Formats: sequence, C-alpha cells, structure tokens
Amino acid sequence: MTVRDRIMIAHSLAGDEFGPAQRLHGATYVVEAGFRGEALDDAGVLVDIGKAASELRTVLADLDYRNLDESPAFAGRNSTTEVIAQVVGDALADRVRAGALGTGIASLVVTLRESDVAWVSYEAVP
Amino acid sequence: MTVRDRIMIAHSLAGDEFGPAQRLHGATYVVEAGFRGEALDDAGVLVDIGKAASELRTVLADLDYRNLDESPAFAGRNSTTEVIAQVVGDALADRVRAGALGTGIASLVVTLRESDVAWVSYEAVP
Amino acid sequence: MTVRDRIMIAHSLAGDEFGPAQRLHGATYVVEAGFRGEALDDAGVLVDIGKAASELRTVLADLDYRNLDESPAFAGRNSTTEVIAQVVGDALADRVRAGALGTGIASLVVTLRESDVAWVSYEAVP
Amino acid sequence: MTVRDRIMIAHSLAGDEFGPAQRLHGATYVVEAGFRGEALDDAGVLVDIGKAASELRTVLADLDYRNLDESPAFAGRNSTTEVIAQVVGDALADRVRAGALGTGIASLVVTLRESDVAWVSYEAVP
Amino acid sequence: MTVRDRIMIAHSLAGDEFGPAQRLHGATYVVEAGFRGEALDDAGVLVDIGKAASELRTVLADLDYRNLDESPAFAGRNSTTEVIAQVVGDALADRVRAGALGTGIASLVVTLRESDVAWVSYEAVP
Amino acid sequence: MTVRDRIMIAHSLAGDEFGPAQRLHGATYVVEAGFRGEALDDAGVLVDIGKAASELRTVLADLDYRNLDESPAFAGRNSTTEVIAQVVGDALADRVRAGALGTGIASLVVTLRESDVAWVSYEAVP
Repeated sequence: MTVRDRIMIAHSLAGDEFGPAQRLHGATYVVEAGFRGEALDDAGVLVDIGKAASELRTVLADLDYRNLDESPAFAGRNSTTEVIAQVVGDALADRVRAGALGTGIASLVVTLRESDVAWVSYEAVP
Repeated sequence: MTVRDRIMIAHSLAGDEFGPAQRLHGATYVVEAGFRGEALDDAGVLVDIGKAASELRTVLADLDYRNLDESPAFAGRNSTTEVIAQVVGDALADRVRAGALGTGIASLVVTLRESDVAWVSYEAVP
Repeated sequence: MTVRDRIMIAHSLAGDEFGPAQRLHGATYVVEAGFRGEALDDAGVLVDIGKAASELRTVLADLDYRNLDESPAFAGRNSTTEVIAQVVGDALADRVRAGALGTGIASLVVTLRESDVAWVSYEAVP
Repeated sequence: MTVRDRIMIAHSLAGDEFGPAQRLHGATYVVEAGFRGEALDDAGVLVDIGKAASELRTVLADLDYRNLDESPAFAGRNSTTEVIAQVVGDALADRVRAGALGTGIASLVVTLRESDVAWVSYEAVP
Repeated sequence: MTVRDRIMIAHSLAGDEFGPAQRLHGATYVVEAGFRGEALDDAGVLVDIGKAASELRTVLADLDYRNLDESPAFAGRNSTTEVIAQVVGDALADRVRAGALGTGIASLVVTLRESDVAWVSYEAVP
Repeated sequence: MTVRDRIMIAHSLAGDEFGPAQRLHGATYVVEAGFRGEALDDAGVLVDIGKAASELRTVLADLDYRNLDESPAFAGRNSTTEVIAQVVGDALADRVRAGALGTGIASLVVTLRESDVAWVSYEAVP
C-alpha cells in the first residue's frame, strides 16, 4: 500500500561532480511511501491508510519548507536525494518498529521524485 | 506546440500569509512552454521544436540551480510561482518578438508545476 | 493558479444510453480547480494557495464519500461528471463572489478526472 | 510486461477505522497487471499483449460498474483496495495457470490506483 | 469532455531542419479529443462518452499501425505532429458536423502527445 | 536512482499474432533506467546522475530516430518492446561493467513505456 505526499526544500551539494548543484538551490520532492506485508488484517487492510499518510506527514514535517544545509539530520554529509530518501525511510521504519502502523509491515520503500525525469527509491526493513 | 523542461531553485516568500514558506526552501518547477498560432509553415510546423526547446532552456538557465532571493530579476518582489511564470513567459515573448522562433507565434502560455498538486499558467503575447 | 484534490463517490445514471453505468457504481474524481485573473496582488499571487485549497476542500466535502443518488444537489437529474463539475464550479464561484478568495479572480475552471482516459472541464465566472 | 485498464465501482467499508468510508461511496481503480518471466518466446514476447489485455478485461468485467457490497466475491469481508487487488490478482493467476497466457509467466503483480495519491499492489504466483 | 486514445505510426520528415527525424522513425501519439459546448442535454451530458470514444477510434483507425509516408492523407506534405493533429481534428469535426455526436458541440480540441516532454493541440470548429 | 529519456523508432513485427503491428509502424518509448546498489558513496550518491543520464543517452542514440527493421541489433528477431528493453538493459550493464558508472551498482532495471497503457521492464545484472 502506497501513499503520496510532498516537500519543498533548499539545499546545496558539496563536490565538483555536482556542477551547478553546488550552488544553493532547491527541490520539490514528491514522496511515495510504500508498505509491504504478507497478509491483511481482519478489516482487509495491510495498514490504516489514514495513519500511514499521517506518519509520513509527521516524518516529512521535519524537512518541509527548510534549508537542509542547516538541518542537523544532514550535518557532515550531502542532502542528496539518495540521502534524504534514506533519512525518510529510516524514520518511517522507526515509527513502524515502534508500533505506529500495526504489526503487518515487513518492509517499506520510499520513493522521492525530484522532477518528471529523475527519482530515487530506498528500501528499509523495520 | 508545447515543450517541457525543468528547473530547481531556492527562495523564500515575504508575508505572513505564506506561513512556513517564509523560510528559505525551494522547488522543482516542471516548466511547459506552449506556443500558439493560426497556421503552419511549409514544413508543417508552427515552430521548430528544437529551437523552441533551446529558447526555453536559455530562458530557464538564468534561474536554474539558483537562490532566487539573490536574483536581480526578483529584487523587491516575491519570487512566487506566479511571478516566476511571468518572468519566464515575458522572457520567452521577448525572444519570439526578436524573431528567434519565426513569425508564426500569436501567443504563448507558460505553465510551472511546483508539485503534483499545484501549478500556475501565464499567457503572454509577443 | 490550479490546485488539485479528490473525492470518492457512488452514483448511478438514468437512461439507456448509459449502459452498465445505469447500475449503482462509483468513481474517484481527481478535481483540479484553476483560478484566472489579470493581475497579481502585492505579495505576488493571484490567490492564496492555502485558501484556494481550503475552499475547494470545503466545496468537495459535501460530495466526498457519498452516494450522490441520495444527495439533494442532484435531485431530479443525473450526477454525470459534467453535472458534478458544474455543481463544484458553481459552488466555488459562489465562494469567490462572497469574497473568500480576494478580488483578483476573473474566472475559474474545474476539471474532474474520472479515470486516466476521461475527464470533464467546466468554466464559471464568479 | 504491464497493461493498464480501469473499473468504476461502489462499495462501503465496515469498521470505525474507515471513518467516512463506512458510508456507501465508490472509486475508479486504474488497474495495472504486470507479468514477469525469465525468458521471451521465439516471437520476442513474454506474453501476447492483446491476450493479456483481454484476460485482464475479462477478470475486471465481473467488478466493473458494480456495487461490491452486493458482490459474492466480497461476501463477509471488506472490499478494500487491498482485497480487490487480491481478488483480481488471484483470478488472473488462475487464468495463467489454466494456460490462457502461455507458459512463460513466473509471477504477476496487480496494482490498483484508487487516486493520484494512493495505490495498492499485490503479487501472485500462478 | 475529453477522451483519450492512442496510435503508433511510422513516418519521416522532409527538410534539413528536422535533423535525424528526416530518417524513417516513428511515434506513439497519445491522443486526447476534447469537446466543448455551452449546455448539457437532458441526460446531463455534453456528448455520449461511448460515442465520443468510438468516433475518435474510427478517425484514428485510418492512421494506426501505419507508415504515414505512404498515406494519401499526407501526400505532398510532412506528417508532423501539428499536421496529424489537424487531420484528426478536422476529421472529428466532420463527424460532428454530420451529426454523429449530437448537436451540443461548439468546438473541439485535439491534443497529440508525442512523448512525455512534447505535445501539440489543434482546435477545430465543426 | 532512476533517470528518464526517450526514443522514437519505426519497426514491424513478424508473426500473425501481432495483427496490425505486422505493418511498418512506430513508437515513442519513454525509457527509464533505474540503478540499484547497497550503499552510497562519500558524496551521498549511488551513481552520478549526470553520468547515468549520459550513459543512457549514449545507449539510446543507436536506436533513436531509426527503423529498427534495418538495425543489426535486431537482425533475425523481432524488435518487440521486450527485446528492445533487453538490448538497452544489456548495453547499459556492459557500460556499468566497464566502469562507466562507478562500482556501486548491483543491478539495473530498464522500463520502456510504449504508451500510457502498456510498458515493459527488464532487469540486468552487470
């Protein structure tokens, strides 16, 4: 089961290989959080869709409308799309591990779409 | 005839009504430039698609991977999606007026998609 | 400026020409509300995007998760996609006329996407 | 190889956790059926695309333009998106097992998109 | 009201300005036919969606799975996306004029999407 | 990490099962190349996005704006979407094996979208 949300952030990336992306710029990330499991509960769902969307929003709220260059979560490393996907995926996995989304989730995949032509996915196991 | 490109920018918006968007953040804008005319040329096109894409890229290059808070184009005003659309549309109209895309274009429409759920269009007459 | 939301409704359509759609069935409508105007305000926007999304949600809330066959808004007529678009568009135009979205809106267009291969647009002048 | 089709259904969901979705409402499901295999046949395909689309249509026809609350396939259980995906996926797997789509299919994945922001996938092994 | 269909064609384009597109190549065109009118009929529709889709299919069938370099419809001119849009739009307008889609249609717009980053629209008045 | 590009080709498919696709026709393929790996490098990326897009373009350039019936890559076999995906995927895997995209890529998936309703994916291990 997958839900979609979005964030708008500023950041810059250190390293010559990033070319113009070394300058301060930004991105809209359309974020898709997909939850996987083996079986449905008695109500016929893997996870409550409202709760899933709400947990995703909670995780994204720490990043939304922020300059990631100043965010502790990315201190000492580049906030590339890959790294943000990892931060979001690990944070969601933590929430799942803490029981926020029931017991049916075996793994989750977070996809960050940075434009119509580029995106990154990251898989986490709670 | 419409072509699509994209930019990634940082900016902040002044005014309480912008809430968290007052903070420095950013956006990916998927940009669609549509050209309208009454008739096709002898080759069967309204405008050369390669030239149209190239003119759009030239206009967008001034904004791409930049912090618009420091851009002279937005000095003294907010770089809202509406305003950026206007800047891009007027710049494209200037290029058309200068003859960069032939003589068949009567008007153009620039659309900036800031996410999967919000976008802005602006119409300009060269 | 256009914002997107969505509703999920049940309904049936009276008339042999509707074939199997005469049976009780349903639809997800992805709803896009586009607002048009001649000029931006001092903040650089045509309309506050938060308020626009909120007004659209208010209008859609009357339809969302409902069986339109039992809705007074469609008494005596079919709740076709065209008619729902009209109901949503007219309700939004009423809100605009009442001042809920400032004074810059000259017209609005509501699009209801009933699937990936069919949609309806309706233009209203507040 | 993946093909896309769509259905429009009515249903209601039992259980307080479904909130307003407990009311009779409906959905458009954009349905994607993906077939996986190890090797292509002599013609260079995994499965005949026309037959794949036709089998998917056959399976969906039992659900299309119907009130799933009255469908025997969902008697005694909620017709959540997850459960419908399972019903469609298992029915397609049955058709594959019966030989309707050749011998090259190792597994299949059915995705039901209930809106632009939520979808469910289900994997079945014929 | 807009419906979507698609065709797959081969063609080549004469003229140095087309660069590599002078070679025989091809395209998938996702075709959207939009019908506009002032008022709905008693059933609540502008045009019967089934008939609209069927008329579009009839018009597209003449082009689908063909090499347009050999099609009489494009003899002596390039089958650019613009020209194909015109051919499809004019053919649809002919059908409307002949009464195939009722009396409510004031104009129609045909859009041909040749890829995710380029498309053409053409407006015809029946 | 996935990047998107596109090609426009002509071809015909041999075999009665292909029906009208036995005629010379064509397709736009929107091509997505996804690269998978276990860990990010010190810069925080799996693979340089610019290089990935460039390698994909290099591989696609051999096919773009061509009649695949005359291409040596498809001599003696049908250039079905499945086969083209395999050709593109294997060529990309060769480039990865040759070190063009660093050492972090464990596998890659190539998706060719032939229309809005049909696509093919192929997985290759460098």
